[in-house]
Amino acid sequence: MKKVEICVSPELLHLYEVSGKNVVIVDIFRATSTMMAALANGVASITPFMDLESCRAKAAEGYVIAGERNGLTADGFELGNSPIAYLDGAYAGKKIAMTTTNGTLAIEKTKAEAARVIIGAFVNLRATADFLIGLPEDVLILCAGWKGKFNLEDSLYAGALAALLFPQFDTDCDTVFAMKNLYQDNAHRLNLFLGQASHAKRLQNHNIEADIDFCLQLNQYDLIGILKGDELIAEKTK
Amino acid sequence: MKKVEICVSPELLHLYEVSGKNVVIVDIFRATSTMMAALANGVASITPFMDLESCRAKAAEGYVIAGERNGLTADGFELGNSPIAYLDGAYAGKKIAMTTTNGTLAIEKTKAEAARVIIGAFVNLRATADFLIGLPEDVLILCAGWKGKFNLEDSLYAGALAALLFPQFDTDCDTVFAMKNLYQDNAHRLNLFLGQASHAKRLQNHNIEADIDFCLQLNQYDLIGILKGDELIAEKTK
Repeated sequence: MKKVEICVSPELLHLYEVSGKNVVIVDIFRATSTMMAALANGVASITPFMDLESCRAKAAEGYVIAGERNGLTADGFELGNSPIAYLDGAYAGKKIAMTTTNGTLAIEKTKAEAARVIIGAFVNLRATADFLIGLPEDVLILCAGWKGKFNLEDSLYAGALAALLFPQFDTDCDTVFAMKNLYQDNAHRLNLFLGQASHAKRLQNHNIEADIDFCLQLNQYDLIGILKGDELIAEKTK
Repeated sequence: MKKVEICVSPELLHLYEVSGKNVVIVDIFRATSTMMAALANGVASITPFMDLESCRAKAAEGYVIAGERNGLTADGFELGNSPIAYLDGAYAGKKIAMTTTNGTLAIEKTKAEAARVIIGAFVNLRATADFLIGLPEDVLILCAGWKGKFNLEDSLYAGALAALLFPQFDTDCDTVFAMKNLYQDNAHRLNLFLGQASHAKRLQNHNIEADIDFCLQLNQYDLIGILKGDELIAEKTK
């Protein structure tokens, strides 16, 4: 039977087999949620970058550049990291270059060996689960975490996704038992529970509660985000 | 206010400040549970070793040597890793040299900087919490894990201990929010819940259910286990 595992931080990734697996990268606040908002609202592709400079350089090639530092849109950038900027379709058809430190690191560490690299967010949870159930490979859910540490929102999403993969998948990964159970016990009060999370508190300090609310909405989109070459693109699942 | 944090694996320890904190080392199946059983039943001290050879060498100095490989008492060793061997007081007054890979690694990584290194187990959960509440330092709970990965039993203990430290302690550590909640939701069915854990399954394959049952008993002992030099000794808390 197919297996699902959860790795709570890129710092533990060396302990997991990546080769031949479908890897789901999770960075709920806000990188992967913003990516799904962008893809669902028509952007042609998203190319992630670790640093501002490489990202900025893509403007000369016609990319819309998106990035923040310290909660503010970076100097000379058209967009910050808010998912809400994409919701009116203003960037439909555009290629986006986006900086996201934790998420990009996770993609870079896995793309050479993984069967597929997929991005995970609550906003397309069910679609991602359905997509993975339809494929033959094992799944590794890789939480981007926060500066290498476990974080609550990414791990809870991982538990939510793993829960949907049963019974077509099995596991012997303790992180799956823990996070699946934690999600199921708290799904009815996700906003309240995640309001405790250290990252949510940091975001609240920047007055972006609307972003948080968006990132915690389930199943808004019936498509998945998948890496092709260096670009994330949308694939319809229905 | 004093802070509590949980580190789910020694592989993530470099992300945490250890200096000046009380560090609680957890290896529920079975190292730290066995250590507490031994200390509570009168052994003079326990000196932990990573490898069989260093441990075996202590026999010449009059130590009782304890260690297992592949679920069997190691060649030439008097004891395996079962807590039950100590319960009749047969080793009272003896100095024990014990091999335990994950637990020893965690002790070695923290003892130089920590204010105190304490061992944690369900069998003396309340005593350890009371001890920490009575001290001024912040607390870092370090799970020994399984080959570097998150494991369920150590993380649940960490959540149980953290839960008892509130409200005298506070936290901004997401692992504390997660594991405290997971423990509180499953405390009424700890054996059932941990029966899913990968390590419990490995132990069941070795027919040591009695050891597992022992390791999951709460608050059997009113003393703590603390490192003094290279030796773990008991300290009464009442």
